[in-house]
Parts: sequence; C-alpha cells; structure tokens
Amino acid sequence: MAKVLVTGATGFVGRHAIAPLLAKGHDVHTVGSRPMDREIPGVTHHQADLLDAGQMARVITTVQADKLLHFAWFVKPGEYLTSFNNIRWVHATLEMLRLFEENGGTRSVLSGTCFEYDLQRGFLTEDVTATRPDSLYGTCKNALRLMAEGYAGQSGLSTAWGRIFYLYGSHEYPGRLVPSVINAVLLGEDAKCSHGLQVRDFMHVQDVADAFVALLESAVTGSVNIASGQPVTIGDIAFKIARLAGREDLVKLGAYPAPENEPPVIIGDTRKLNTVVGWKPSISLDDGLARTFDWWKAQQAGASG
Amino acid sequence: MAKVLVTGATGFVGRHAIAPLLAKGHDVHTVGSRPMDREIPGVTHHQADLLDAGQMARVITTVQADKLLHFAWFVKPGEYLTSFNNIRWVHATLEMLRLFEENGGTRSVLSGTCFEYDLQRGFLTEDVTATRPDSLYGTCKNALRLMAEGYAGQSGLSTAWGRIFYLYGSHEYPGRLVPSVINAVLLGEDAKCSHGLQVRDFMHVQDVADAFVALLESAVTGSVNIASGQPVTIGDIAFKIARLAGREDLVKLGAYPAPENEPPVIIGDTRKLNTVVGWKPSISLDDGLARTFDWWKAQQAGASG
Repeated sequence: MAKVLVTGATGFVGRHAIAPLLAKGHDVHTVGSRPMDREIPGVTHHQADLLDAGQMARVITTVQADKLLHFAWFVKPGEYLTSFNNIRWVHATLEMLRLFEENGGTRSVLSGTCFEYDLQRGFLTEDVTATRPDSLYGTCKNALRLMAEGYAGQSGLSTAWGRIFYLYGSHEYPGRLVPSVINAVLLGEDAKCSHGLQVRDFMHVQDVADAFVALLESAVTGSVNIASGQPVTIGDIAFKIARLAGREDLVKLGAYPAPENEPPVIIGDTRKLNTVVGWKPSISLDDGLARTFDWWKAQQAGASG
Repeated sequence: MAKVLVTGATGFVGRHAIAPLLAKGHDVHTVGSRPMDREIPGVTHHQADLLDAGQMARVITTVQADKLLHFAWFVKPGEYLTSFNNIRWVHATLEMLRLFEENGGTRSVLSGTCFEYDLQRGFLTEDVTATRPDSLYGTCKNALRLMAEGYAGQSGLSTAWGRIFYLYGSHEYPGRLVPSVINAVLLGEDAKCSHGLQVRDFMHVQDVADAFVALLESAVTGSVNIASGQPVTIGDIAFKIARLAGREDLVKLGAYPAPENEPPVIIGDTRKLNTVVGWKPSISLDDGLARTFDWWKAQQAGASG
C-alpha cells in the first residue's frame, strides 16, 4: 500500500483513476479545484487551486504522498489549445514535482498527449517519432515533459509520461465527437460529421485511467503511449453509435469540410505499453461505446425527468 | 529610434550590448538585480529581481519598451547547470514576454545556448541538428525556446533566439578557461589544461553582443547561432594567451583528464547569422585575446596597486 495523490481528480480521466487505485489497496488522496461530487470511502479530497503556489504547497506538504498521478491542467473547451494558462500549468507542475520529491515522494506519472508528436507521421512511436506540436497546448506539454525528465534525471525521482490519444466515456465534455453523436441520435437529430475517413486511435476512459495506474505501479520511465493501437475511422465511430439507437440514417458524413492539413492517420505504437509496462486494454470499442451510450441516455433521462 | 529594454544588463553579455544599442540611437533601458557599476548617459537603469512577479511587472509596465533583449538568467558558476532556478527563469521569461507584448512590445530577442543541441553531432545547424541537451540548464533553455516560439506564433510577437557558443572577454567569471589561463601566466603559475585537442567555436563577447543587437534590428525569427564558425582547439587558445606573456612554458596540456564523453568538436553553422541576419564578427581571435589579456592585466594591477 502506498499513499497516492491524484490531481485533476474531478476531471474526465482523473475521476476514473480512483477506483483502480482503491482496488490496489492504496491510501488515495485527491486534489481538485472543485469539491468531489460524492463522498468515496477511502478517499481524502483536498480542494485547492494548484496554480496558487501557496495552496499547492499546503496540499503537497500535508499529504506527504509516496506516489503522484498528475492529470490537472487547463482544459476549457475552445480555449485550451491557445491559452497562456498552459504556460502556468507547466510551471505549477514543476514546482509541485520538486515539492513532492522534497517531501518524500518517489514515483510520479504525468499526463502528456499524442499532440506532442509530429502527427503527419501517422504511426507514433515513443523516442522514435519526432515531436512537433502545432498548438501552445502541445508545445507546453512537450516542454514540461523535457523539463520534468531533466529534473527527475538529476533528483532521482522516478517519472513516467503517459501520452493520451483519443478517448471517450462518461463525463466527457458534450461538445466532443462521441457525446455529440450520441446525443444527436438520442434526440433524433442529424449527427453532422466531416468526410469521416480520418483514422484515429480510441480508448475508453476507464482503460486510459487503468493504464495510468498500471504505469504508476511499474518502474517504467520516459514516455509511454496510452493508446489502443487499433485504428478506426471517425465515420465508423459515428455509425457504430447510430446503430445503438437504430438511427444510422442520421449520420451525415461530409456535412462540413475537414480542417486543412488534418492528419489522415493517428495511431499509437503500443509495444511499450503492452510489453514493457505489461498492460493491455480490456474494454472493446463496441462495449465501450455501448456503455457510454447508456450513460448519456441516463443523463438525458435525468435531465428531462 | 526605439525604446529597448535589456535584461541582465549588469552581466557578462548584457553589459556589452549597451554601447551598440546607444550607437544605433535607441532609448536604452536596462534591468538587473544589481545597480549599474557606473552611470551611462542615455541609459535608464531599473534595479529589479525579474523572478519576483511584482518587480518584473513594475519594470515592464513602467518602461513600455518597443524591443526586448533578454540575457538575464541564473548563471552562478558551479550551480547553473543543475539549479531549479533554471525552471523559474523559464517561467519568469514567459510571463515577461506576455506582459511585454501586452504593453505594446513588438520585437524580442532571447538568449539561448549551443548546449540545446546534440553536441555529439559536432557541426551544429539551426533547425537541422537535433536538440538533445544534457543538463537541466540546456533542457530549460530548449523548453523556453519552444514555448516562447509557440506563444509568439499565436500572439504575433516577433521573436528570435540567439544561441551563444563559446565566448570570452572582459568581465568574464575568472574560473572560466580564458581568464584562468591569462591570470595563471600573468602570475607565473602553471596553466593546467586537459589534453587540449577539443575543437571549439569562440567569439569575443563584444562581437556576441553586437550580433544580438544586429539580430534585434532585423526581422529574422527562430533560432540563430551566435558563433564564429571558426574552429580552434583549447590547446591553441592556451598557447596564444601564453605567448602574449612570453610564457608558453607554463601551459601544461594533459595535466588533468578530460570529462568522459566530452564532445570532440563543437562548431556553429554561421550561414543564417552571416547571410540572413547579414552580420559578421569584426574581432579576430588574436585581437580579442590580446584585448582580454590587457584587461585582466589592468585588473591585476588595480588589485595589487
């Protein structure tokens, strides 16, 4: 058993990491800018703004965690790609890492993104594919990774960097692909897509969170793709969802143009995750979409009930 | 004429940038953690610690500069390669850049280092040679460059990044190669070196500062090597200096082992500096070493007089 601190624990991925950490028998502490939406036995929540140096220091020195799982970031839809808050999260993360290590922390896993890579390469392999982020968000994640590894290398802190690819599941922001298609077909509205031929690498958010916990439990360092390695087109995703509602007629491919220079293929190389970390996903795309469909259906029922 | 703010203006390179900026007719403002050692007509000095967000903001909003030439950094000998202050300077620089741009600044030049490159490649070309810093210092300079370019790219701020190679001249830290050999031979003591076969790219600090001013005056963006392109061995440097004192007998090559894995060759590709920026150095190595020798001789005379 270890004392584990999870940041961003009220967010999309972070909230799904709590159950697998508890299942490992850990003493779980969470930190988030919001209160938890429910009490969870065995979990101690600390409400704090990690961008506030004083609040951050209070949490780190109070908890004295052995392990750190860091998901917190600025993720506001429509703003996160360009916000100066990306730069502030880089700095806050590094100050937190230093304080964590100085307070006895030994193992940390931070969350990165496939958007660090040169996405035009298509098949993305850790330490092989060049990094070439095309947003301030990707640039800052990449820069944080470099500095965190530099700091860890000289301080002796064990650190890994999980690169998240495409994901879906309960609690996702409704404007994203999977929820927007689900909600459209549930309401009997058109699910408008671009041409839909983009090949992507999707993983259910519970598998993503499980993979991060497996990475945290391991001694693996450096970057690790948190990916399925299973290519699927955006069009296939839309039709799979529509089929769950029996409304494939609502999927409108080609309803709007795809962004210029959009990468045709984004697939993560999963050999390091599968072999070195020794972890594989357990939720198939069909099962994951069905679970997610049911969750949104319950949300709609709740909202209208 | 523009209003130019120079940071690190009491440091090794920064102090040499003041004269060429005044020669261009600029309204020069300087900022440094220390007072200026002398009054310079036409220069307004602001004493402030740029790592203190409040002090930094006060200087930037008071000066309202058009152009920014940023040399300030943590440079304490023996500590700068590994200090956590490297991470703090990354953040302070980015916050300063944002405030500079929001207060009407249009052009900035920041100082980088050849230590961002994979030095084992030997001949180092901007945007071609891979980056692979092997210290937290080099890692943080590299990460800052990536984020500053990312921020500038979306804000419209014109930004260039001058990568400093090996330099020498007056006011250098006495423990560095050139001053230590000069001071040894002036005192009649052994000038102990390693094997001395390392090929390096040296430039006089006044040329380095002149190159930064030329870069600031240009519209060139991205990384630019601030290098001579002229290879010289460490042993040749030592013998050139000793010859100025008529004491070549004092140079002891092989007196200590070279660090393992030390790069045999470090030469900057100067095509971008010479052709795109349109600037070339004007101080030959022999002249520069003679000027530096005389300056240290005067320092010794002053110290003992």
